[in-house]
Amino acid sequence: MGQSAPGDPVQRLEFGASLTSQGVLFRVWAPRAKELSVCISSPEAAILRMERGADGCFTAFARGLDPGAEYMYQFEDGRRRPDPVSRCQPRGVHEASQVVDPLAFGWTDGDWRGLPLQDLIIYEIHTGTFSSEGTFAGIVERIPYLRELGITAVEIMPVASFAGGRNWGYDGVALYAPHTCYGGPAGFKRMVDACHRAGLAVILDVVYNHLGPEGNYLAEYGPYFTDRYRGAWGQAINFDGAGSDPVRRFFIENALYWLTEYHVDALRLDAIHEIFDFGAVHVLREMADAFHRQARLLGREAWLIAESDLNDPRVINPPAIGGHGLDAQWHDDFHHALHTLLTGDHNGYFMDFGRIGDLAKALTQGFVYDGGRSEYRGRRHGAPSTGNSGRQFVVFNQNHDQIANADAGRRLSQLASLAQQKLAAAILWCAPALPMLFMGEEFGASTPFNYFTSFTERALAEAVSEGRRREYEPFFTDRAFPDPQAAQTFVGSRIDWAEPARTPHRELLAFNRRLIELRKSTPCLANSRKDLTQVSFGEEPRWMIVRRGDLSGLDALLLCNLSEKSLTLTVGEQSGRLALALYTGEETFGPTPSVMPPATIEKTGASVELASFTAALYLPATGKGTADDDR
Amino acid sequence: MGQSAPGDPVQRLEFGASLTSQGVLFRVWAPRAKELSVCISSPEAAILRMERGADGCFTAFARGLDPGAEYMYQFEDGRRRPDPVSRCQPRGVHEASQVVDPLAFGWTDGDWRGLPLQDLIIYEIHTGTFSSEGTFAGIVERIPYLRELGITAVEIMPVASFAGGRNWGYDGVALYAPHTCYGGPAGFKRMVDACHRAGLAVILDVVYNHLGPEGNYLAEYGPYFTDRYRGAWGQAINFDGAGSDPVRRFFIENALYWLTEYHVDALRLDAIHEIFDFGAVHVLREMADAFHRQARLLGREAWLIAESDLNDPRVINPPAIGGHGLDAQWHDDFHHALHTLLTGDHNGYFMDFGRIGDLAKALTQGFVYDGGRSEYRGRRHGAPSTGNSGRQFVVFNQNHDQIANADAGRRLSQLASLAQQKLAAAILWCAPALPMLFMGEEFGASTPFNYFTSFTERALAEAVSEGRRREYEPFFTDRAFPDPQAAQTFVGSRIDWAEPARTPHRELLAFNRRLIELRKSTPCLANSRKDLTQVSFGEEPRWMIVRRGDLSGLDALLLCNLSEKSLTLTVGEQSGRLALALYTGEETFGPTPSVMPPATIEKTGASVELASFTAALYLPATGKGTADDDR
Repeated sequence: MGQSAPGDPVQRLEFGASLTSQGVLFRVWAPRAKELSVCISSPEAAILRMERGADGCFTAFARGLDPGAEYMYQFEDGRRRPDPVSRCQPRGVHEASQVVDPLAFGWTDGDWRGLPLQDLIIYEIHTGTFSSEGTFAGIVERIPYLRELGITAVEIMPVASFAGGRNWGYDGVALYAPHTCYGGPAGFKRMVDACHRAGLAVILDVVYNHLGPEGNYLAEYGPYFTDRYRGAWGQAINFDGAGSDPVRRFFIENALYWLTEYHVDALRLDAIHEIFDFGAVHVLREMADAFHRQARLLGREAWLIAESDLNDPRVINPPAIGGHGLDAQWHDDFHHALHTLLTGDHNGYFMDFGRIGDLAKALTQGFVYDGGRSEYRGRRHGAPSTGNSGRQFVVFNQNHDQIANADAGRRLSQLASLAQQKLAAAILWCAPALPMLFMGEEFGASTPFNYFTSFTERALAEAVSEGRRREYEPFFTDRAFPDPQAAQTFVGSRIDWAEPARTPHRELLAFNRRLIELRKSTPCLANSRKDLTQVSFGEEPRWMIVRRGDLSGLDALLLCNLSEKSLTLTVGEQSGRLALALYTGEETFGPTPSVMPPATIEKTGASVELASFTAALYLPATGKGTADDDR
Repeated sequence: MGQSAPGDPVQRLEFGASLTSQGVLFRVWAPRAKELSVCISSPEAAILRMERGADGCFTAFARGLDPGAEYMYQFEDGRRRPDPVSRCQPRGVHEASQVVDPLAFGWTDGDWRGLPLQDLIIYEIHTGTFSSEGTFAGIVERIPYLRELGITAVEIMPVASFAGGRNWGYDGVALYAPHTCYGGPAGFKRMVDACHRAGLAVILDVVYNHLGPEGNYLAEYGPYFTDRYRGAWGQAINFDGAGSDPVRRFFIENALYWLTEYHVDALRLDAIHEIFDFGAVHVLREMADAFHRQARLLGREAWLIAESDLNDPRVINPPAIGGHGLDAQWHDDFHHALHTLLTGDHNGYFMDFGRIGDLAKALTQGFVYDGGRSEYRGRRHGAPSTGNSGRQFVVFNQNHDQIANADAGRRLSQLASLAQQKLAAAILWCAPALPMLFMGEEFGASTPFNYFTSFTERALAEAVSEGRRREYEPFFTDRAFPDPQAAQTFVGSRIDWAEPARTPHRELLAFNRRLIELRKSTPCLANSRKDLTQVSFGEEPRWMIVRRGDLSGLDALLLCNLSEKSLTLTVGEQSGRLALALYTGEETFGPTPSVMPPATIEKTGASVELASFTAALYLPATGKGTADDDR
């Protein structure tokens, strides 16, 4: 970020359109431009020749210009392009950028200081399909519902402006401009502000590994991209080649921008395994340093959470031992381990999973693949994460990717029985990690979540439809393939808010609420001490007992029957008298149980009978334990 | 390496042609082959069908076959290819491989245990041009000369078989087969054995970042290469993609092979910045672990020394703080800093240097570029190496690359005056690091060292000639451009061993011998405590005083006048009475001095007058100091 006034922690962006008392200062890094002008189109047309500095930065000052003005940068050959650091694209990604006053919004979250990482219970939301409005305001409407559910943080899929009105967000191209369809900058600020007033943290999903294929004009300005690495989704970003310093700054300042101007509490960094940086200081390390420094300056707790396919603890290790210093990362291995146990799916990356031992390892050690051979990858994969805290792993039974890509749009509610869904939920809520739900999961939404786009360039639109069809149509064995470009694919992925009131959704919702409440109120569940977590299990028949400890010596026990028959499990050594707090087979949450576990466990060696695909949670009958943690 | 008999540290290669008491076992990893046979061409023609294992490994056993037998692997379509793990290519890289008995050589170096890293004084040799024979035997002949010079280690440019008879070695394709022109496996062993008997360590330069363009058949066997990264010299090696485990093993076992079968003491890993590995365990870290473990098993000291353009201390940091655990790396910044001061060259990467402060930083901190902006690279470069020992840096005033590529084949003897050469040598020998000479540098060889090849594929040969001409001819302003394919380019790069007996070569040789002797006999010069090294300097006029300390509190002082006029330097605080040990301007080593520094320095604030481009070395007049070190 650029200079800030003394005592003013809200630093301004160095680039973009910056308001001053006299007008607007335009500044853009454009080493590839010979000449550059600002073309103002609103409120009145004007052209301002920009001055080129030695470092490829062009500047111009528009005296008297106000917020709301629209402008583009014009190159020497007449090309007009949006501002790379545009705060708003009111007419889409190909058209004019708009001047925004970053200080105009009336924040009411002055007391908000963020949440400890440990306390995050995350709810992933796609803004466009979460509500019928498809806007940030639609999220605000559901805040009371989310509070009642018990989650503590919403994670918003990427909001950076993309082509058209329907997109997951990973095709964003104006990385500083909350999408206008969703409500733009003011709408996003209102949402964050409302969340904070309700005690909810906001995590924003950001994409720093590629840009979308339509409306990406960055390469016309400077060396934002490189051919040195072959990215999964088009050109890799130039984080380590010639001219990379301003590129790194562009992304690092973007991270600071959401923290500072939008008060977000955490960023979820999309697919960092597609960020190629062989330099001596990895851009993520530099970003983490700057982000945490800025959070301290703002007096808030703020976090960086990676999506990483590397199974590399360096991502979340502190710099002192060679890590990037990110705070946490998604724990895909947990998902895959549990998913294969429930669905029997062994396609794609699921082929590497299927043992209860995998799930036990995910719970107690972190990475399941920590150096062993992965058949799917055709090589050894990962390194041990035993030294990392459980709070450094976000666990989930579903997310946007897993539903749409791994399971052809089908949620767990379509793939597994109600009993299995409840069993999976019990395991999730008892995991020594940061749990996450995908919107609607809490009530077993019956609506699919499909991949959708709305590219406007015809050749691209056709290529996306065809490419997706070629890759995914074989998996749509019982339904028509949903064309990503079709509006219906988007509309059909919307949450149906009538469902939570109906059976069995209502029961599943109540069940999840109760588990979240138990987790939050029970210290030995609320901590993320995977080092104090022990798991015993059998592969055939399939059972698992998770013992969650805390420093006061109290234990909680989650007994799981992952088999198709009722089973009697024998409880090992234990710290004291335990009382049944929840049985996933009990009447309130489902059909009348055929088997009911005992109300208390008094001693070592007790037998507990569980119906097929059920879990029983036993909590200490005396004492509350301590909410210790390992950091 | 494969299994070894108990008590037998000489483990056998898992792949290749392995001798047993009954015959020869052939084993090759060839997942891309449908069928594979061993075609034996000598002593008698025979074809053996190989058996395919589940892991893409093919095996066959040839009963009664002896060492010396020649063979190729034949694919299902009739293609015949050399063994990827061939120990010998007697007829070149396109022809048959030869069975070698790794235990047949009669080693006489049983007492040799290697040298401490600290003690390495390195002499870089290109086998083909070091002697008129161009062989390992030609090196053996010069061992008495090298001993007298005082160096402790020879570093042999790559010996892996390449196409034709003339090559620097970086186009090697049979990575386990010492080139037949040089003397093959037995010749190389004889050379190592002779070096060890003479107390010289052997460092072998190995190339693990690419293979040469002619005779590289590896991709026909398996996924050795990847398109994911764009390498500088052709396809990058697949260290992190599908099928990469056996590829990693191929290179790691190669490192162990030289250590075990050839008794080499260290490997110089060529250009590790072209080794692309995004996996959780970098192949160099895995290699360092295996190499050091094997050295311990063999009861020897052995080292891995990287050439790295990354200025990244992780390369040489221990794994505990996130490093790869290599022992040392080349210190290019030292070279560039001193080279620009002497030659005034500011082309290419030299544009980033030119200040005495750069040289001072190289001596006391390591990397000059440790996070600052490099104009040449167009970005910030590197990270600080202040925490690394001086022994982790190999310093040099010349090497094969710098002479041939940076200076159009010209050595420092053509680029700088004799006085400047002696000044540069004095700085090199007083550096708190591991010093290295390029063959002939010690006597200021007048012969050039040019780039040469002998590709036999016509299109490739022409492309190499033309490519080189396009890139380098502009720098040959005063001479004809030496075509790399021309035999004369190779012949002309040979050392002229008549020179060391002639003036001024004889004087320069004596001067270097004396400095090496002083370095070895003076504890405060012999250590590599850059943390106990202090440098004061002035940029205009150019002077520098290097103070080398040891733990006993004694200092040596090297006073340098890097300017074109005589200068009087004032000595700062000092530990005791110092005596002039060497003055680069003194009569014995050059013209009659116009200025002579005082024979002793008695106290702080003494004045020392130095002629243009000279250095004076003062050593403690009393006491010997201690040969302490920081590890």
